[in-house]
Amino acid sequence: MNDKTFPKTENTSLRRLPKRGSYDHAVVHAIIDEAMIAHVGFSGPDGQPFVLPTAVARIGETLIIHGSAISRMMKTLAGGVPLCLSVTHVDGVVLAKSAFHHSMNYRSVTVFGRARMIEDPAAKEAALRALTDHLAPGRWDLLRPVTAKEVKATTVLEIPLVEAVAKVRSGPPVDDAEDLDWPVFAGVVPVKLVKGEPVPV
Amino acid sequence: MNDKTFPKTENTSLRRLPKRGSYDHAVVHAIIDEAMIAHVGFSGPDGQPFVLPTAVARIGETLIIHGSAISRMMKTLAGGVPLCLSVTHVDGVVLAKSAFHHSMNYRSVTVFGRARMIEDPAAKEAALRALTDHLAPGRWDLLRPVTAKEVKATTVLEIPLVEAVAKVRSGPPVDDAEDLDWPVFAGVVPVKLVKGEPVPV
Repeated sequence: MNDKTFPKTENTSLRRLPKRGSYDHAVVHAIIDEAMIAHVGFSGPDGQPFVLPTAVARIGETLIIHGSAISRMMKTLAGGVPLCLSVTHVDGVVLAKSAFHHSMNYRSVTVFGRARMIEDPAAKEAALRALTDHLAPGRWDLLRPVTAKEVKATTVLEIPLVEAVAKVRSGPPVDDAEDLDWPVFAGVVPVKLVKGEPVPV
Repeated sequence: MNDKTFPKTENTSLRRLPKRGSYDHAVVHAIIDEAMIAHVGFSGPDGQPFVLPTAVARIGETLIIHGSAISRMMKTLAGGVPLCLSVTHVDGVVLAKSAFHHSMNYRSVTVFGRARMIEDPAAKEAALRALTDHLAPGRWDLLRPVTAKEVKATTVLEIPLVEAVAKVRSGPPVDDAEDLDWPVFAGVVPVKLVKGEPVPV
């Protein structure tokens, strides 16, 4: 049982609907572990924000992302600039009696921090294994082994999980009492990411 | 037929795998129109990047997002700071013979720009209608009509689509010729966001 919590910081305090927030490691971890991708945000040299989708995996209290050694995002993030990483699962469309109370059910995590390049070859390989096995458990050991050249061509970054918050909405719409008899369907349309049968080459 | 293209700018030039990119309005529009959420990135006053998920809809060449008038994100974005908006659909997990050639099939759009607050009441209501009907077509006209108080409590922002690029990967893994006989499955696991049967309140 992991009952540790992340500290509530200026960045991770929820002004709006604080009851939807959670600082529990276990809640944050579970949301990240279900994700195939995260959206990573950072500023370019002139202050222009960039947001890019990227594969993500977790090893303990560390997030792993990777990319080509020549990618702009990897080079910038490896420089240790402040970043924000967001993981979001949409679980449902919440249909209320009024437009105002429409919503979505979702589970999201926001992480603030800085990335560090993983240089140690063993640690780098462990991180690449985590990324591969996250998408297809147990697969790394079945693959043609990585070569030194491939590892060198890949930048692997770790982001320590120190400042993070989860935000979750679930359940039915919450309508105003006087709208409950309005003659339109109210409820939730469930939304789910589904994996199909593998299609061979 | 919409055969217009977005200009290729410093921000939207793809250094990595430019063949995956598209500047076609029709391609960009189709990816956005299938999205329930976007991830919006911007910098706070001290340069800290934020990335937050939010509902998105499109009216012609304009993106619409909204939120509580008191939300930090809405206030910051309404100030006209530079932003980056990302929409991503994961379509498949691409399983290759080597870890290095693993990938994902995806369709993404990256938009750069600045938001403007929609103040005109008719335009604001049209934007809210677009957000609602985007999630549930035709629903706006069936709902209890919005009140002036609700409209006032909501900040609606428009982001002109002027600098945007789509990036798409599809198809099977591309393995090295010498790995093709390696004894492990190679192919694509399709991934799809599926809506279930509506659950009434």
